[in-house]
Amino acid sequence: MDLATLIGIVLGMDLIVASIMIGGDLGAFINIPSIVVVFGGTTAATLVKFPLSDCIAALKIGGKIAFKNTADDPRSVYDIAIELAGIVRQKGLLGLESVQVENELMARGIRMCVDGMAAEVIKESISKEVDMTLKAEMQGESFWRGMGDMAPAFGMIGTLIGLVQMLANLSDPAAIGPAMAVAMLTTFYGAVLANLICIPLADKLEIKIDNTKNTRALIVESVMQIHASQNPMVLQELLGVYLPGGKPAEEEE
Amino acid sequence: MDLATLIGIVLGMDLIVASIMIGGDLGAFINIPSIVVVFGGTTAATLVKFPLSDCIAALKIGGKIAFKNTADDPRSVYDIAIELAGIVRQKGLLGLESVQVENELMARGIRMCVDGMAAEVIKESISKEVDMTLKAEMQGESFWRGMGDMAPAFGMIGTLIGLVQMLANLSDPAAIGPAMAVAMLTTFYGAVLANLICIPLADKLEIKIDNTKNTRALIVESVMQIHASQNPMVLQELLGVYLPGGKPAEEEE
Amino acid sequence: MDLATLIGIVLGMDLIVASIMIGGDLGAFINIPSIVVVFGGTTAATLVKFPLSDCIAALKIGGKIAFKNTADDPRSVYDIAIELAGIVRQKGLLGLESVQVENELMARGIRMCVDGMAAEVIKESISKEVDMTLKAEMQGESFWRGMGDMAPAFGMIGTLIGLVQMLANLSDPAAIGPAMAVAMLTTFYGAVLANLICIPLADKLEIKIDNTKNTRALIVESVMQIHASQNPMVLQELLGVYLPGGKPAEEEE
Amino acid sequence: MDLATLIGIVLGMDLIVASIMIGGDLGAFINIPSIVVVFGGTTAATLVKFPLSDCIAALKIGGKIAFKNTADDPRSVYDIAIELAGIVRQKGLLGLESVQVENELMARGIRMCVDGMAAEVIKESISKEVDMTLKAEMQGESFWRGMGDMAPAFGMIGTLIGLVQMLANLSDPAAIGPAMAVAMLTTFYGAVLANLICIPLADKLEIKIDNTKNTRALIVESVMQIHASQNPMVLQELLGVYLPGGKPAEEEE
Amino acid sequence: MDLATLIGIVLGMDLIVASIMIGGDLGAFINIPSIVVVFGGTTAATLVKFPLSDCIAALKIGGKIAFKNTADDPRSVYDIAIELAGIVRQKGLLGLESVQVENELMARGIRMCVDGMAAEVIKESISKEVDMTLKAEMQGESFWRGMGDMAPAFGMIGTLIGLVQMLANLSDPAAIGPAMAVAMLTTFYGAVLANLICIPLADKLEIKIDNTKNTRALIVESVMQIHASQNPMVLQELLGVYLPGGKPAEEEE
Repeated sequence: MDLATLIGIVLGMDLIVASIMIGGDLGAFINIPSIVVVFGGTTAATLVKFPLSDCIAALKIGGKIAFKNTADDPRSVYDIAIELAGIVRQKGLLGLESVQVENELMARGIRMCVDGMAAEVIKESISKEVDMTLKAEMQGESFWRGMGDMAPAFGMIGTLIGLVQMLANLSDPAAIGPAMAVAMLTTFYGAVLANLICIPLADKLEIKIDNTKNTRALIVESVMQIHASQNPMVLQELLGVYLPGGKPAEEEE
Repeated sequence: MDLATLIGIVLGMDLIVASIMIGGDLGAFINIPSIVVVFGGTTAATLVKFPLSDCIAALKIGGKIAFKNTADDPRSVYDIAIELAGIVRQKGLLGLESVQVENELMARGIRMCVDGMAAEVIKESISKEVDMTLKAEMQGESFWRGMGDMAPAFGMIGTLIGLVQMLANLSDPAAIGPAMAVAMLTTFYGAVLANLICIPLADKLEIKIDNTKNTRALIVESVMQIHASQNPMVLQELLGVYLPGGKPAEEEE
Repeated sequence: MDLATLIGIVLGMDLIVASIMIGGDLGAFINIPSIVVVFGGTTAATLVKFPLSDCIAALKIGGKIAFKNTADDPRSVYDIAIELAGIVRQKGLLGLESVQVENELMARGIRMCVDGMAAEVIKESISKEVDMTLKAEMQGESFWRGMGDMAPAFGMIGTLIGLVQMLANLSDPAAIGPAMAVAMLTTFYGAVLANLICIPLADKLEIKIDNTKNTRALIVESVMQIHASQNPMVLQELLGVYLPGGKPAEEEE
Repeated sequence: MDLATLIGIVLGMDLIVASIMIGGDLGAFINIPSIVVVFGGTTAATLVKFPLSDCIAALKIGGKIAFKNTADDPRSVYDIAIELAGIVRQKGLLGLESVQVENELMARGIRMCVDGMAAEVIKESISKEVDMTLKAEMQGESFWRGMGDMAPAFGMIGTLIGLVQMLANLSDPAAIGPAMAVAMLTTFYGAVLANLICIPLADKLEIKIDNTKNTRALIVESVMQIHASQNPMVLQELLGVYLPGGKPAEEEE
Repeated sequence: MDLATLIGIVLGMDLIVASIMIGGDLGAFINIPSIVVVFGGTTAATLVKFPLSDCIAALKIGGKIAFKNTADDPRSVYDIAIELAGIVRQKGLLGLESVQVENELMARGIRMCVDGMAAEVIKESISKEVDMTLKAEMQGESFWRGMGDMAPAFGMIGTLIGLVQMLANLSDPAAIGPAMAVAMLTTFYGAVLANLICIPLADKLEIKIDNTKNTRALIVESVMQIHASQNPMVLQELLGVYLPGGKPAEEEE
């Protein structure tokens, strides 16, 4: 669970709600047609932007990466690889049969080793999986960024609708204030949707995608070396370059 | 038919119309001179931006790609290529004479094979067609993006015209509201045109162009291998690298 | 004559004028001091931006490229090159003496061939001319883009001047409207100047510069091959790669 | 101590406070809920944007680099390296045991030399430290830039909340002014936070990161040469290329 | 003296002042606290952005390049180089002793030749000077661009201060107009400072830096060839490639 994402969204929402409640009634900030224009319009424009299948995949990927802390820490992959290499030295590749590996990609690679597939086939297969996952993740990022670009625009469109309607019917001066208040709600919704949710989520996806690249290269290398029954000592040297601070003897988070 | 594009535009329009109807009369949002300024002005600036022939081609290409689901799925091209290679092994290149291939580019390549043209000529010819199509598609994208950049600007120009006229004649206070309402309509038109249609269409073109690059490389490779009467088994290996998830045995959408 | 550029600017202006005339008097939109601030200020900032000599050259180049349809169609260059190569095969390089070539760059290259200059000298000379022209054209583009960046800024500066003056003298309420109307005129001028003229012209220059690159490479190659008395048949092959759709036998625009 | 950073922030704050005090009361510019929305909202969005551990590290790194004048002046590193090389020539590597080096990275490298570690190990170790520090610094920069992007957005969100509340309750005209004043405070906070603190700090980090790259390469080279007991004369030549103005004989700041 | 820069700034200022005087009193546009907020705030943020030493250097470099027409015309350097090469052929390198070269960089190179320094040393020395100057010039550009980014932001901050103060004290309606007028002055100052001075100066620096790159390469080459007592005829060929339009026989500005 990536606490920062959740804390951030909940905290931001709470602060906005609290700030509204100090100054008045929360009810004045809830208006169904305004919500429909901003969320519906943003969704509609997103449907024009992206192929339908991409939208659904992007939504899933986005949620998964942003909120979950994937088991992609390079150090833990390194530790497991050294451990597995030790097992292979003692019992051969079949000794890996009963081993449980948390990381999905690595688990799949190890399973292929146990199944006796050729090194080349394993490498191609897990490299392709890495590429596909990466492509899906980058689609997820561009999906959320696209939403973040559209939300303020539809907030403005909603406000323009409200202003035109208010201005066309100025007969009752007492209605001007509340009508303008409602008109501004769509801009408010668009700004919150974009700046608290969509754009920060896209940014977090970008950072996480960047961080996992190294770990994935480490996983591919680990699986290949384990398949080759590499000596655990040599493996420490080979995989050490993928660790942020060198070999495990050093302290770091 | 790319449903997402159509659903998106229709849904977006419906939401905006519905949102207008909840708050008042749709008639207040239709103003012919405003429509003329925004759509005409955007078109005029687009004519200055792009050579005339590009505009027409871009409009056609844009509509075609955005709304149609072209038969450019790499898996289907792969399946057809394997099938055709089998036919060639049995009956020779002339056996392809009666085969119907849905994909236009591939069909043209196969026809050239049947016509007995040299491999080099076929490759150059279909590669050139790929380049030309790609260039036309990228012109289409930049055309729609250019429209999307211009529309809000002419929306603002129209609003400025309306505001200046209203401010120059403040004698009748009752007319201020409706005059401002009309002035804001052009901004509204510009925002809807840009954010619901032009920019999302340009984005979708960009994504589709990107997606087809791989498929087109696959088609060129397929035709060349079929021309060389490649063994279908070997062909599966050779073309498998173009598929997003490896060979067809794997499950994926 | 590049009709699109002219039609676009005239059409855009007409639409704006028509839209003004529907709603009132054109006179309300003409204000000499406002014109002076926007056009003068934009010009002043452009003088700070670009060296003086660049400004004049850029203005000329910009007008020339944007409005003229230069004889830079690759197909016509190709046709002429094949024709000239035939003449050279029959009568030698001196046979080109009486030939009229429309394209300036090519004409210069051919004249150098007739004058008996060395291949290397000709190549260097016309390549340098291509580079210089390209540099001048790109300066032209950045000049117009710079104008397009500055115009809205000086429109806003003019509006701020008008607003400050109006606000400082609120004694006569009847004067507020017209004063604000005049203040907004500069924003209007800046928006029209930037979005109908400067930015679209810069965009068109960019597209035309991009399009001529290929033609110019074709011209340099043509002249070199003609100088070498290349066989017209071989020349067709050599130059065919510069044509958008392959050799002339194919149909295309 | 980087005086410019401190002077800039203090001076900017003083100018803003002074400018407020000339026109009225400072109290009108302090509003707790507004501060909560802008600072809290920006913090919340930053938590969504960056992994939690990055935030804390970035905050520390940012403060450290922006306010401290690190001992990363290439000239002083050069001088120390020449001095140390002299000591090594006279007393061997162990002669460095009692030497105090201010620069942390260099000190660590020298300590490893004294400890008799292999050249390769030292190089890899300090190169890795350089990479890790660089990555942390760049995270610091993007953290502050991200804050600077978010602050104006949450300023606008706060203002929208205030405006909607004011417009929904227009019954008391006397309350409109003060309510709008409070609503605008959040925009003010967001603008000051972004433009006086976050964005300039990010820019300064960017410049400092750029400047230290050269010095760090010089440190790595110095340590390697000292380890190799390089002749101080030769070392002057080798390290001179890292100095901005050549060898120390020349005058410069 | 680069007249365009001076004419541009003076002309722009005059136009703005004239435009103010047509509509009213210049005095209404001068407000000391507003000037302090905009200029002081921009300066403060710039101090946070750039190291202190960079600020001063950048200011000097900026002024020097923007207003002076440096003797960096490639043609004049070319002419001097040919002339000096002739002198060297006749009297040897010592014959250059009494020659006055206007361009500082070239003069320094020639002086080193006369002083009998080795070719390598001269090349390294003047290349380093070129790099240092280039770096300083690019700092100058980014300094002015940074000022141009900050000025409108502090203009807005000043306007927000004024608006909040005005809105908090709405008791006297007669004071609203003038108070708002003053509030808008800071936006006006920020816009003029950014769009007439800072951004155009940064753009001119960018263009000039780009233009001098070629001349500086020519100077380095010239000095090296003169040092080698190159034949003036050969030198013409060698240096001709640095001229925009080939050798001096051709006409051009």
